[in-house]
Amino acid sequence: MSGTGGPRRVLVLNGPNLGRLGSREPDIYGATSYQGLVTSCRELGAELGFDVEVRETNDEGEMIRWLHEAADGRVPVVLNPGAFTHYSYGMRDAAAQRTAPLIEVHISNPYTREEFRHTSVVAAVATGTIAGFGIGSYRLALRALAEELDLDPQV
Amino acid sequence: MSGTGGPRRVLVLNGPNLGRLGSREPDIYGATSYQGLVTSCRELGAELGFDVEVRETNDEGEMIRWLHEAADGRVPVVLNPGAFTHYSYGMRDAAAQRTAPLIEVHISNPYTREEFRHTSVVAAVATGTIAGFGIGSYRLALRALAEELDLDPQV
Amino acid sequence: MSGTGGPRRVLVLNGPNLGRLGSREPDIYGATSYQGLVTSCRELGAELGFDVEVRETNDEGEMIRWLHEAADGRVPVVLNPGAFTHYSYGMRDAAAQRTAPLIEVHISNPYTREEFRHTSVVAAVATGTIAGFGIGSYRLALRALAEELDLDPQV
Amino acid sequence: MSGTGGPRRVLVLNGPNLGRLGSREPDIYGATSYQGLVTSCRELGAELGFDVEVRETNDEGEMIRWLHEAADGRVPVVLNPGAFTHYSYGMRDAAAQRTAPLIEVHISNPYTREEFRHTSVVAAVATGTIAGFGIGSYRLALRALAEELDLDPQV
Amino acid sequence: MSGTGGPRRVLVLNGPNLGRLGSREPDIYGATSYQGLVTSCRELGAELGFDVEVRETNDEGEMIRWLHEAADGRVPVVLNPGAFTHYSYGMRDAAAQRTAPLIEVHISNPYTREEFRHTSVVAAVATGTIAGFGIGSYRLALRALAEELDLDPQV
Amino acid sequence: MSGTGGPRRVLVLNGPNLGRLGSREPDIYGATSYQGLVTSCRELGAELGFDVEVRETNDEGEMIRWLHEAADGRVPVVLNPGAFTHYSYGMRDAAAQRTAPLIEVHISNPYTREEFRHTSVVAAVATGTIAGFGIGSYRLALRALAEELDLDPQV
Amino acid sequence: MSGTGGPRRVLVLNGPNLGRLGSREPDIYGATSYQGLVTSCRELGAELGFDVEVRETNDEGEMIRWLHEAADGRVPVVLNPGAFTHYSYGMRDAAAQRTAPLIEVHISNPYTREEFRHTSVVAAVATGTIAGFGIGSYRLALRALAEELDLDPQV
Amino acid sequence: MSGTGGPRRVLVLNGPNLGRLGSREPDIYGATSYQGLVTSCRELGAELGFDVEVRETNDEGEMIRWLHEAADGRVPVVLNPGAFTHYSYGMRDAAAQRTAPLIEVHISNPYTREEFRHTSVVAAVATGTIAGFGIGSYRLALRALAEELDLDPQV
Amino acid sequence: MSGTGGPRRVLVLNGPNLGRLGSREPDIYGATSYQGLVTSCRELGAELGFDVEVRETNDEGEMIRWLHEAADGRVPVVLNPGAFTHYSYGMRDAAAQRTAPLIEVHISNPYTREEFRHTSVVAAVATGTIAGFGIGSYRLALRALAEELDLDPQV
Amino acid sequence: MSGTGGPRRVLVLNGPNLGRLGSREPDIYGATSYQGLVTSCRELGAELGFDVEVRETNDEGEMIRWLHEAADGRVPVVLNPGAFTHYSYGMRDAAAQRTAPLIEVHISNPYTREEFRHTSVVAAVATGTIAGFGIGSYRLALRALAEELDLDPQV
Amino acid sequence: MSGTGGPRRVLVLNGPNLGRLGSREPDIYGATSYQGLVTSCRELGAELGFDVEVRETNDEGEMIRWLHEAADGRVPVVLNPGAFTHYSYGMRDAAAQRTAPLIEVHISNPYTREEFRHTSVVAAVATGTIAGFGIGSYRLALRALAEELDLDPQV
Amino acid sequence: MSGTGGPRRVLVLNGPNLGRLGSREPDIYGATSYQGLVTSCRELGAELGFDVEVRETNDEGEMIRWLHEAADGRVPVVLNPGAFTHYSYGMRDAAAQRTAPLIEVHISNPYTREEFRHTSVVAAVATGTIAGFGIGSYRLALRALAEELDLDPQV
Repeated sequence: MSGTGGPRRVLVLNGPNLGRLGSREPDIYGATSYQGLVTSCRELGAELGFDVEVRETNDEGEMIRWLHEAADGRVPVVLNPGAFTHYSYGMRDAAAQRTAPLIEVHISNPYTREEFRHTSVVAAVATGTIAGFGIGSYRLALRALAEELDLDPQV
Repeated sequence: MSGTGGPRRVLVLNGPNLGRLGSREPDIYGATSYQGLVTSCRELGAELGFDVEVRETNDEGEMIRWLHEAADGRVPVVLNPGAFTHYSYGMRDAAAQRTAPLIEVHISNPYTREEFRHTSVVAAVATGTIAGFGIGSYRLALRALAEELDLDPQV
Repeated sequence: MSGTGGPRRVLVLNGPNLGRLGSREPDIYGATSYQGLVTSCRELGAELGFDVEVRETNDEGEMIRWLHEAADGRVPVVLNPGAFTHYSYGMRDAAAQRTAPLIEVHISNPYTREEFRHTSVVAAVATGTIAGFGIGSYRLALRALAEELDLDPQV
Repeated sequence: MSGTGGPRRVLVLNGPNLGRLGSREPDIYGATSYQGLVTSCRELGAELGFDVEVRETNDEGEMIRWLHEAADGRVPVVLNPGAFTHYSYGMRDAAAQRTAPLIEVHISNPYTREEFRHTSVVAAVATGTIAGFGIGSYRLALRALAEELDLDPQV
Repeated sequence: MSGTGGPRRVLVLNGPNLGRLGSREPDIYGATSYQGLVTSCRELGAELGFDVEVRETNDEGEMIRWLHEAADGRVPVVLNPGAFTHYSYGMRDAAAQRTAPLIEVHISNPYTREEFRHTSVVAAVATGTIAGFGIGSYRLALRALAEELDLDPQV
Repeated sequence: MSGTGGPRRVLVLNGPNLGRLGSREPDIYGATSYQGLVTSCRELGAELGFDVEVRETNDEGEMIRWLHEAADGRVPVVLNPGAFTHYSYGMRDAAAQRTAPLIEVHISNPYTREEFRHTSVVAAVATGTIAGFGIGSYRLALRALAEELDLDPQV
Repeated sequence: MSGTGGPRRVLVLNGPNLGRLGSREPDIYGATSYQGLVTSCRELGAELGFDVEVRETNDEGEMIRWLHEAADGRVPVVLNPGAFTHYSYGMRDAAAQRTAPLIEVHISNPYTREEFRHTSVVAAVATGTIAGFGIGSYRLALRALAEELDLDPQV
Repeated sequence: MSGTGGPRRVLVLNGPNLGRLGSREPDIYGATSYQGLVTSCRELGAELGFDVEVRETNDEGEMIRWLHEAADGRVPVVLNPGAFTHYSYGMRDAAAQRTAPLIEVHISNPYTREEFRHTSVVAAVATGTIAGFGIGSYRLALRALAEELDLDPQV
Repeated sequence: MSGTGGPRRVLVLNGPNLGRLGSREPDIYGATSYQGLVTSCRELGAELGFDVEVRETNDEGEMIRWLHEAADGRVPVVLNPGAFTHYSYGMRDAAAQRTAPLIEVHISNPYTREEFRHTSVVAAVATGTIAGFGIGSYRLALRALAEELDLDPQV
Repeated sequence: MSGTGGPRRVLVLNGPNLGRLGSREPDIYGATSYQGLVTSCRELGAELGFDVEVRETNDEGEMIRWLHEAADGRVPVVLNPGAFTHYSYGMRDAAAQRTAPLIEVHISNPYTREEFRHTSVVAAVATGTIAGFGIGSYRLALRALAEELDLDPQV
Repeated sequence: MSGTGGPRRVLVLNGPNLGRLGSREPDIYGATSYQGLVTSCRELGAELGFDVEVRETNDEGEMIRWLHEAADGRVPVVLNPGAFTHYSYGMRDAAAQRTAPLIEVHISNPYTREEFRHTSVVAAVATGTIAGFGIGSYRLALRALAEELDLDPQV
Repeated sequence: MSGTGGPRRVLVLNGPNLGRLGSREPDIYGATSYQGLVTSCRELGAELGFDVEVRETNDEGEMIRWLHEAADGRVPVVLNPGAFTHYSYGMRDAAAQRTAPLIEVHISNPYTREEFRHTSVVAAVATGTIAGFGIGSYRLALRALAEELDLDPQV
């Protein structure tokens, strides 16, 4: 479905503050920088036959538009909603339109942070969730995409 | 109050993902497209003597600014807050400044969706609420505006 | 289905205390009397091609029987449940049997009254809900019926 | 206790909408009609030595009076409270006066319906509860009565 | 307003099951019979210059109509809502229309019964509440009425 | 038990801030001063054959000691716990030792004040509760005591 | 389905502590011993054409295996989960695999015990529930099975 | 740390609708206009040796970027989150990165507004909170900054 | 109102355990001693033209009396309720009588301490709240008083 | 640390109403009198090498001061908070300053009393808790102190 | 009852993971090994005239059987339920059958661990509870047993 | 660390009912059989250099012992707790002792199943969580282990 030519495009979308990775709270988020995340995703993606584009935004509206773009192009998505996890039903509704696998990732496990009792608003519409492996969560998500698409290239 | 000349201006404001109408979850939102919604509102508006402008945004900030614009111009508003219904107190505070009728509409009835226990944050500051009639909700809202303004053209 | 002859019959059903309209708490319910409500509904109904009958009862059992009658005759219903909104699951089960559109109306918006945290028990089984427009809520409901039946006279 | 002569009288009391059995939501309540329920109860009752009278009402006050009548006559009761299950403390107080066994029945299991979090208001004052067997629930209740009265004809 | 001639009329209204007083749960409600209650109220009323009428009903609709009658005639009310205390918002709305003092009474104290977490739905619209004195609660309510009306015969 | 001679002693105990009556929030507490309350209680008490002593304290410990004193002397108590209503389990435990009637009074009805969701901690151990009659609540409580003691002088 | 020959096999499965029946809390569980329960079930079973085997276990894992065994053999089950009612989602998942009727029984009514607010975890996957009849609950369950299988021997 | 030259830079950041100050709900927010707020902050700032820049935004993303800018430049912040107080965990995470004092201010006290039960999402990561003094809250915050920085110019 | 002569009197009132400042949990309350607090308040007060008296008490009743004293003399108050923040409705009612500004202060921010979910009982009746600045909270409160009184010396 | 000479001093502190032991609710608190408690504690204390002083107060402030005294003198404490268990955060903060072991005791088990859902406010800052052994709880606490001090006389 | 001869038998029963004592989370559970616990209990038991047997299990069913064994033999029990504290109603029902004292112990205080809001399921049926003293909790429990049995050797 | 020779051992542990995979609810759990799961894990494990052993149990105690075994041998674990997810704090405490990575997996996403509001009891002590990928969840977990151990073979 993704065309006849090159590697399949994959969007890795990051919510608010994730572009700051490496400059904030290293005890929670690990020492890797955002640039390291981008490189790691693109390299593993290439290895798995994907053309990975990594984006980050602090704007809910922009995140929603990216999810529309992905839905229109049947582009698989790896989504780290960041703080949007806890309240952005707008992002959730956009994610619910997905036409290809969408995998929710978290660097740390949001279910262990005392102050958030609510579970992720996006979990119910995602293909699956991977949390707690630092930037390894993204790498596992790309592998999960590869496996999902391998089973059924039509999705 | 709205001037001496032409038809009174009315803003129909739509929150996140509503511009996608027709491309998502037809079992919930019906088969009408966003363009159909625009046309239907404008036509009925003209019939009722309104100059209807229909807008949609995925950005909370833009929605807030439109509500400020409406308050400044005493422009009546038909507001479908979409997912903002459940959390955007910023939109709520902007709507609370209204200087003309503001009618909340929903395509389906948000009070019947299990996952949202909270009622609409905007209901308490709206003139009234119309929910569950598909895009008919908008048409009823325009008629409600006509009736409100008929009773008291000063509002 | 509604017969070969005259205008389609419509029932406007009012729950407890609504027959007292005009004699209680005008700051909440407006100054219109119950008789004014009846006249307004019948007149607009006639204009829309309906034979509107307006009833009111303080008895849950009677309301249930009227809803059975409507279900048996495929009669569209405009229902203002009044205080039954908050607890009458008996009325709810009767309304769930509806065979024609059933529209819930409220004179003021029950979701803004602090003391009732529960949403309407009837909302989930109604075609749609209209609240907050005074007796205008009824008028909008009749127009909504007209539009629903216009789209599909079979319902 | 119930006299020297004929079969002991038993009241089977049904709450709101249950007289409509067979005309509503067959996927929840099964295909049996109310008349079938009456016949089935009377036949099994006769077999067990009971004179069974089946009644149904949509009126809480009437249900309360029937429970008073049962209490005064020491008449065993099979009670399907219908929607009253969820709010009628008036019925509950009347049932609490029982002077003979009172068995609560439900056609489907109310504890599995998501929208009602509260348990039955009548359970705490009933001899026992039988739920989920369609009209079989009534038949089991009559057998339960027979067994209870067999053990102790004085109750 | 209370007329030029005889004693002022007072309604003592009792909710479901209260007509059974004396035949149920004496450890909670005391040993007095309903007839004793009627006599006691009428005698003390006469002494205080009231023409007391005591009524009881198991029907919410009838209770609502009696409260309408009281509102129309500016008749002071002593109201024991019985089990309606916990759910009848219909009765509450009727009581809210009162045009003369309305005093809520309870034989025992409903706030001490574990199974009811909600406070009385009628308390917020009553002049005052008296609970826990057996039928003495009614007698105190009549005295309270006498004192209220003594202070201001116009109420 | 109350002695052979003079009038029976009664304690009217007031919790925090009640000594300020007349100097605070007249729209809630009425215009009567604390001195007026004392006089009114003593006068009605004398009329009813009681020797009434009215006390007020802002100290929980002192209130507890007064309740011990009452329990030791079998002295009937009229108790307005004031703000202690909402948290003083220490006062509650002291009141639970009562050896004579103890009547809880409130000037306004605490169950109608939005900010306190908890019911009175003392209600469950009181003979009865009277609320909402201004200082009339105290007068009714004294009459209630008279009636209780009249029925059974031994209590 | 149950073979060509003898009576259909039925499993009566009891959760923790139920093997102690007769040695504990007779005011709650009645005076019957576990052996009496076994005998009563087997005798009534034989009468109804069943080969009843009664088992009890204190081990959740064993209960789960028995439910697997029943599912594999399409064996109808009468299940008294005992304390597992309140937390064993493992038992629940095993019961959900049932291939023949599974009836939940309780000796007393768990919904009336104050300390357990949660309803039964197994109710939603059972054919029906019978509670409150002492060991009579088991006898009714066997009759219910007979009736279910009579209607449709294939289940 | 703040450089060798001129006055230390301070950012006063305002959330949604605060730029409308003076045009909305004067009974809650006082009569001061937004321009008055800017002037007052800049003047007092100059007096205290600060170069104060006042900004306002309706966009969560822009607020997040400003907080990143402040964190990068070790710029002290006075933050009035407006309606973001109640839900913007994105803003919260951005504020948590602060490298200089960050003081939360509110014109009125958000803890007294009934409709918001949640406390501020930003309070836990702020140096301190000042609420309820109208635009005086900002002035106190600037003084608090001066005192904090006076104690330790390195922060 | 504050007299013709010397500096205006101000009361700084401290609740339980605050007299121990300096001897307890320095990581939460800072290293300043209570004596340092007294001196700092008095010195800044003198500078601002106030005659500041600092008091501390562990007794709720004494705190209530001090608030009465302040109300009677129209004395502005800086109130650190300490642990009373979480339950003393008695103190709250006393504070509600204030006739001059009353400012609530906290050394640390009580809204960030996990174990207290309730907000301050006193916040709703205070002029404003200042929390989180160590003893700087008191200093800011005195400045806030100066500004309030400067605007309107009559308060 | 406790000096060179005699037995180490231990304070046994009792909250409200505990001085009444023996005169109240013997079914909950046992038949032992307060004097018996004092003697028992002193005798066992002497046996264990302690100089035990037993105190009781109904005043929260006094309890707080005693806990300050204990903290200043490094005196081990056995604390029965009585009703303060449920609300006195002031006592809790005082107890948190302890410089020697502090053991919470209860005569009966507060976690089994239905009306208190909250756990003890003091448990989190105590060395340990002993509940349910009547005055035996105190004796065990003294033995616990002996064992703690034996392990580490410096505490 | 405890026999004519040797020391009375006592069971010390430990729930899941407690056999691992010494190999896990020493900051919570202390440094003592399980073997040290066994020795300490046996030695103190011998001193007190008990024949102490210490057991541990990870199996709920085994724990239930041990409690049955204790009930049958009237053997006093010291029970550390470990994680079963939070959910094993099966263990609770077994413990409720006890025929001799049963004392609940915890090494640390479970009421202080944030993640468990529920209190112990076993507390309500235990003689008493001792928590927070490390393995000292067991030693105190044995002393408590000695004292209980000393008072009444028949229990 | 895992020795000098062969591939590192990995335990894949499955909770109740998971051994039935393939025979139950295929719409939730997919069509793969348990044997397919074992083979898939072992094959991918071999490819990654692991010696994978897959186990399943319906017994909480056995699961706890396996987790002890893993902790003792520093064996990495992939854990699908099945229904234990929702209540087995015993399993949780055992998992908390882990000395090598432990990864929680779920075939479907437990956070989307309406009936379980609680999050996983094991999430807080796991290295990370992977949910929603069918048996792909296990495969991703093995890859995650490989990556974790690659980074730091010592863990």
